[in-house]
Amino acid sequence: MKFTAWRKDVTVELLKVDTIEEAMEKLTGCAAGAVSLDLEGSCRTGLPMETEEVSIFQLLGRVLAEDIISSEAVPGFNRSTVDGYAVCSSDTGGATESMPAFLRVIGEVEMGCDASRLTVGPGECVYVPTGGMVPAGADAMVMVEYCEAFGADQMAVYSSVSAGNNMVMAGDDMDCGQVVLRRGRKIRPADLGVLAAIGRTSALVYKPWKIVILSTGDEIIDPSKSPQPGQVRDVNTYGLYGLAVKYGFDVLGFQVVEDDAAVLEQRVAMAMKTADLVVISGGSSQGKKDATASIIGSLASSGVLTHGLAVKPGKPTILGFDEPSRTALIGLPGHPVAAMILFEKIAGGLWEFLTGQSFVEKRPSVEGLLTANVAASPGRKTWQLVKVDFDGKRDEDTGLPYVTPVWGKSGLIRTLSGADGYIEIDVNDEGASRGQQVRVWML
Amino acid sequence: MKFTAWRKDVTVELLKVDTIEEAMEKLTGCAAGAVSLDLEGSCRTGLPMETEEVSIFQLLGRVLAEDIISSEAVPGFNRSTVDGYAVCSSDTGGATESMPAFLRVIGEVEMGCDASRLTVGPGECVYVPTGGMVPAGADAMVMVEYCEAFGADQMAVYSSVSAGNNMVMAGDDMDCGQVVLRRGRKIRPADLGVLAAIGRTSALVYKPWKIVILSTGDEIIDPSKSPQPGQVRDVNTYGLYGLAVKYGFDVLGFQVVEDDAAVLEQRVAMAMKTADLVVISGGSSQGKKDATASIIGSLASSGVLTHGLAVKPGKPTILGFDEPSRTALIGLPGHPVAAMILFEKIAGGLWEFLTGQSFVEKRPSVEGLLTANVAASPGRKTWQLVKVDFDGKRDEDTGLPYVTPVWGKSGLIRTLSGADGYIEIDVNDEGASRGQQVRVWML
Repeated sequence: MKFTAWRKDVTVELLKVDTIEEAMEKLTGCAAGAVSLDLEGSCRTGLPMETEEVSIFQLLGRVLAEDIISSEAVPGFNRSTVDGYAVCSSDTGGATESMPAFLRVIGEVEMGCDASRLTVGPGECVYVPTGGMVPAGADAMVMVEYCEAFGADQMAVYSSVSAGNNMVMAGDDMDCGQVVLRRGRKIRPADLGVLAAIGRTSALVYKPWKIVILSTGDEIIDPSKSPQPGQVRDVNTYGLYGLAVKYGFDVLGFQVVEDDAAVLEQRVAMAMKTADLVVISGGSSQGKKDATASIIGSLASSGVLTHGLAVKPGKPTILGFDEPSRTALIGLPGHPVAAMILFEKIAGGLWEFLTGQSFVEKRPSVEGLLTANVAASPGRKTWQLVKVDFDGKRDEDTGLPYVTPVWGKSGLIRTLSGADGYIEIDVNDEGASRGQQVRVWML
Repeated sequence: MKFTAWRKDVTVELLKVDTIEEAMEKLTGCAAGAVSLDLEGSCRTGLPMETEEVSIFQLLGRVLAEDIISSEAVPGFNRSTVDGYAVCSSDTGGATESMPAFLRVIGEVEMGCDASRLTVGPGECVYVPTGGMVPAGADAMVMVEYCEAFGADQMAVYSSVSAGNNMVMAGDDMDCGQVVLRRGRKIRPADLGVLAAIGRTSALVYKPWKIVILSTGDEIIDPSKSPQPGQVRDVNTYGLYGLAVKYGFDVLGFQVVEDDAAVLEQRVAMAMKTADLVVISGGSSQGKKDATASIIGSLASSGVLTHGLAVKPGKPTILGFDEPSRTALIGLPGHPVAAMILFEKIAGGLWEFLTGQSFVEKRPSVEGLLTANVAASPGRKTWQLVKVDFDGKRDEDTGLPYVTPVWGKSGLIRTLSGADGYIEIDVNDEGASRGQQVRVWML
């Protein structure tokens, strides 16, 4: 890079930027909070992690705030997995198509009915439909295809079975006391079935954080208006709104604020009274960065935790945390691509960490092979937007799809809609090469 | 497999099953519908694909029913990407730190203001903040870090720039008439920013299908009740409800219906009056399969399109389409794992196809390496539930995570919550081996 840091203040600024890991460590430390004991008892000081009991019909995508434990065995009885006859397996030993075993039919079990009135003894069998209860005494099921009726109550069995064949034992699915879903689980469709199976029609989940999104800029107009020369429509508010909704946050409000530090400070202070997260998406000019930093510095009890990140794009990111109001303050760059990636990393990352989500719950990623070299910015973690060619030809050796960088000058919005995700080049890497296998984080 | 098809009806049934591809081709053919011309004009006969105009705040996750075209150039003016001075690039030729070019400052552009009152001539420059409008005459921006004021209106420029440097030209981001988002796009957070940028505060999307979910079984009780011996709680309704919500469908109702073919037929007929999809999740006993098949046979104008699929799990799947009521009828197996996978493949697959979604919009998948052999069922497409060890050690050569099959007897519910996804073994493959690279479709 040709850049020469010949002005002293520029040098100083370059030195004090954090890596994203350092910044997240500081912010997470504050946001996780401490429990301080006072005369009234304990009180937390970090971000509020409140919980609420939510009906099964509203649980999809919510994050569990409790371990879900089965309070009973599932199924509650020995259950057949086939249409057939419940038998004592020892009676079928050696039975073949040419040499069947003959058993006496002593009854029939109906679906959903208690079979405890019946007991299968040696030489006896009972008809049980798929899913029905296997009576006491029987230890296996013979499929109906291997049985043939002879006379009024005799059954020829043409196949031998071992104990446990074609049936599920009581508690085979879930034991009493077993943890079936863990805290931090983002509820998937199948989990609703699991909850229903153990009789849970609601569960304790984390309440969404309340968020206010502020965008600054005299040049920014509402999307419904026509821009005059020098004006552009508000992009960041809408992109960040979309991300906030994706994380399930409760968007209390969003507003474009004029370039006036006093007005912006007043709006931030007002938002801090009700919001858990206040996001200020500023422009990238030095004046705007200075204003955001000084507002966060004066309003957050932590002062400015991070002033600039060693990332590209996204360097002008400013973080703070206010303990009294329990609010995280996040100053994002004006660059829409940077603002969105940093929102995912910081606000999304905080949420995933504090709700205890494991890797698999998070944003999906895919592997692919790069079709072009991507240069890294020395000393910075680099995020490069890419497109994944899922529909096209795949690499013959690995079966992986090809991944193509989406180039575009800084701040172009269409790069966002043209990309499927981004790759990450670590601060110490020199770049990624054509043909290299990369992980794409999906947008 | 030891199975001997010694009963004639079993042989016949084995012969008439469809592959999933054949079944989807039949169903898609009906569901896509034909336009038939009558005296009143044209009318479609397939599934209703209605559209609605939806506000930008409600668009996330909806599927576009129109191409979104920019009706203007974005940005509407030449825009600076740095804080600095707008110049004629030819004036800076050869400028270095030791031999600056000297230019006369003729003004300053404020953010959001029309700069057309200014024109930059040779030897002149104008201050423009990041995002500001570059005045006519100037063809490049010099970053403020490379400039130093000398006297009242003189500026020393210590770096040369080429035409177009540090600025975005009018229309660079989006041209007038350019398609920025295509029909079939499932709206992502960043897309809201793209829409806002071109002044679109709403978009035309597909109306969700209306769905009714019916589960049959005398043994099935409401999750809020305690099962007696022989009874189990309703799992499928809740898992399928979750999937329906995931696809954005409008769940009109769900109900457990007793094992009585006449009652079930009446419920299906009633549901067909309002629903676009009626899903009947039956048991796996022969009697229930027969009842579902005969109901679909009598109520769907297509008759039974598919009676049994060459897949495992999920063989007892029955499909039909009724043209007069424009309803797809989907009979799913009682096995919860099979019911959910088949719902995704059939109902989800229909929705994705008819709304024109491309592969990338669909369910995410990841590559990994198998830790154990998985046997395939000859003549059937096999789906095996697996867990992906995202957090653990990865393969050294490929960097891919390890993928472990989640075993469990047929119908166990916890296999669903223990799995992250499933792998697919094609009908002609003999299985998948330990160490083999596989694609995992995430649940």
